[in-house]
Amino acid sequence: MSADFVLYGYFRSSAAFRTRIALNLKGIKPELRFVHLRRDGGEQHRPDFEAINPHKLIPALVHDGHTITQSLAIVEYLDEIVPQPPLLPKDPFGRARVREIADAVACDIHPIANLRVNQYLEKEFKADAKAQIRWQRHWIRLGFEALETMLARSKETGRYCHGDTPTLADICLIPQMANARRVELDLSPYPTLVRIEARALTHPAFDAALPKNQPDAE
Amino acid sequence: MSADFVLYGYFRSSAAFRTRIALNLKGIKPELRFVHLRRDGGEQHRPDFEAINPHKLIPALVHDGHTITQSLAIVEYLDEIVPQPPLLPKDPFGRARVREIADAVACDIHPIANLRVNQYLEKEFKADAKAQIRWQRHWIRLGFEALETMLARSKETGRYCHGDTPTLADICLIPQMANARRVELDLSPYPTLVRIEARALTHPAFDAALPKNQPDAE
Repeated sequence: MSADFVLYGYFRSSAAFRTRIALNLKGIKPELRFVHLRRDGGEQHRPDFEAINPHKLIPALVHDGHTITQSLAIVEYLDEIVPQPPLLPKDPFGRARVREIADAVACDIHPIANLRVNQYLEKEFKADAKAQIRWQRHWIRLGFEALETMLARSKETGRYCHGDTPTLADICLIPQMANARRVELDLSPYPTLVRIEARALTHPAFDAALPKNQPDAE
Repeated sequence: MSADFVLYGYFRSSAAFRTRIALNLKGIKPELRFVHLRRDGGEQHRPDFEAINPHKLIPALVHDGHTITQSLAIVEYLDEIVPQPPLLPKDPFGRARVREIADAVACDIHPIANLRVNQYLEKEFKADAKAQIRWQRHWIRLGFEALETMLARSKETGRYCHGDTPTLADICLIPQMANARRVELDLSPYPTLVRIEARALTHPAFDAALPKNQPDAE
């Protein structure tokens, strides 16, 4: 099956990182194609990639003649076609809780702190490198504060965000932790997030998905 | 069943708008509680609401003793507990396509153009009202260009984003169209989006969910 999958990614992209974790957890080894994101006109703007994904964003997964973009849609797709190990719990409320944590990262933190937003801040508001770091830290901090509160107070939080096995929630959280470390955000106010990250990074599926362990890493 | 649901919302919030459409499609009439979002310290910052949602964002749905935040998680939850009419197709690739369209709006357009980002632009970069409108138009335009390309070229696009019945994709697209109209974005480059919006607004579930038709509308 693995040979049927093609993943367009970039080592540093945290959305691609999510899909790498999910593919690893499912035991799928896709053919990898690298789309180098750059500040000044990266490869995501090339017409051949735009034909694959008009959004000019990575990741994109090609499987069985279909192209799927959007990391969360890719992870849910993988979970539907390869059910073991499950990336969502069985009960509807548990599923909602996992998606809620995933969306808190994937909707409310990551897109705002993303490269293209920072590029536009520079263009539109002359935001320098320091202001861009401040911007990223602000949105990560805001999201992490709420996630820490939510995870610390819930009996459903286990060794991972939901229980003791990895789910879609961890698949989103761990790449965001890597982004937070890249902008040197003080993580001491988020002991639950740090504890879950430490646990996840002992798991080979997460470790192998780390940016530094990718063939295109600089 | 309806009496068991409580929805925390605000007429103008497009994330709350999504959940209103889904509730209407499922025939659920929740008890409504209004959280008035304001530029200068809205009700989402009140401690009683923060206890419900540490993210201080709406919507939040309370059902059966559980609180669910994040509009996409709420819609997927409703679709799992009330299967008819389905808000996602049955085949995995169709489901991925619908989630991809939904996420293109819910991750890559809406959060960046949102109120709290605009407030922070004002604080951090002295962005005035005009610059904030320009900012919102930019991100909506970028997302709509890709969505128009994607929807116009696919045989799976029907009267709605995916086939001839409403799905999670339309539940995200229609509120975003309302936001685009609010900032007077020129919609003529997006005939497919405009056509789907016109169709959706003939559906009572979409019409009843419109901001102007809410009890808290100003």
